[in-house]
Amino acid sequence: MDSTKIDKVPEPTLRRLPWYLSVCRLLKARGETYVSSTRLSKETNIVASQIAKDLSFVDVVGRTRVGYEIDNLLEVLENFLGFTSMHKAFLFGAGRLGSALLNDTGLRQFGLEIVAAFDANPRLVGHSVAGIPVCDINDLEKEMRRHKVKIGILTVPIHNAQEVADRMVVWGIKAIWNFTPLRIRVPDDIVVQNTSLYAHLSLMFNRLDSVEETENSKK
Amino acid sequence: MDSTKIDKVPEPTLRRLPWYLSVCRLLKARGETYVSSTRLSKETNIVASQIAKDLSFVDVVGRTRVGYEIDNLLEVLENFLGFTSMHKAFLFGAGRLGSALLNDTGLRQFGLEIVAAFDANPRLVGHSVAGIPVCDINDLEKEMRRHKVKIGILTVPIHNAQEVADRMVVWGIKAIWNFTPLRIRVPDDIVVQNTSLYAHLSLMFNRLDSVEETENSKK
Repeated sequence: MDSTKIDKVPEPTLRRLPWYLSVCRLLKARGETYVSSTRLSKETNIVASQIAKDLSFVDVVGRTRVGYEIDNLLEVLENFLGFTSMHKAFLFGAGRLGSALLNDTGLRQFGLEIVAAFDANPRLVGHSVAGIPVCDINDLEKEMRRHKVKIGILTVPIHNAQEVADRMVVWGIKAIWNFTPLRIRVPDDIVVQNTSLYAHLSLMFNRLDSVEETENSKK
Repeated sequence: MDSTKIDKVPEPTLRRLPWYLSVCRLLKARGETYVSSTRLSKETNIVASQIAKDLSFVDVVGRTRVGYEIDNLLEVLENFLGFTSMHKAFLFGAGRLGSALLNDTGLRQFGLEIVAAFDANPRLVGHSVAGIPVCDINDLEKEMRRHKVKIGILTVPIHNAQEVADRMVVWGIKAIWNFTPLRIRVPDDIVVQNTSLYAHLSLMFNRLDSVEETENSKK
């Protein structure tokens, strides 16, 4: 993949590309072979000119009148988004949310393979969840040498989040997918992707309250 | 809650408030009673003036020198974020990700109670996951009358996502927490909160690639 190109892709574009991918999958399942920007626009509520701009970042060329070949666009998008190559990951914290993610085999379809989980709870260590072994956090160094893992998924309680993140960085993790509601501090060259379900939840509660207030005030 | 106040809270503020909440929980567990903006700033890497601005939206007053009383700030933030009142929800699609969420009892601590799940698969219907019954999607109307539910969690395959979202809206769901990578279309007065794990995954892959390219080019 052309790295100079990667650097330039704006984050909003990266957020929209999976939507186009989903539309392609739907249309392909219905037996269609081509998709136009206009069609993508209708399906996603994003203006066609924006879609054309977004797709200019990936290596795909549309044809006048018919648009993009769906098989080609699918392949290019899946490649570009990193879903076709498998990325190994460790998961830290095999509690409620951690176990839930270990059970979500869908991640594998999107290029993420969790090869081991770590936990401090002796009742979990030595067992496996969804076929993935739960190891003692003290075996991290050994497991890092065994697997070549760059990604760590952080699902520990907030009280341990910073400490576990620090250990991940010491032993060579380069990207942390942070599911905790804590803002972890890491060196500049470490990628942190925050996905706090609970923050999204409060955004939704808040917007729901606003909508209901507006409706009540209309009555 | 003062709705005119809710409307005005900017989304970035709403995204940062859970971080302050987490810091308060950590400090309280360590036996501390007061927290200053400076301390919150150090723990979250957010500038103190921004923190003071964010906290001005919630009903809390800091004291000169000592800052905010932690117990008070905790209570106010949890209330404000909607975590103290229980919101009932239905979950649609008890497959991999859906079951994972049904097993995540942490959601309940943050104000979300999933009271029933729906699925089209006859092998799942009639059973329960983590104590939550899985119902036939055709029983939605009946269950809506039984429970007063405004929130629907969407974890079906993309091929059914739009159709299920349409049914949710018809039967009175007001907010949809959309975990599918599809952009669903709904009327203007319906709240949609998108949380696509796979989109976050591709953002992380992409940033990891960029960081590694930068490091390689330094060598």
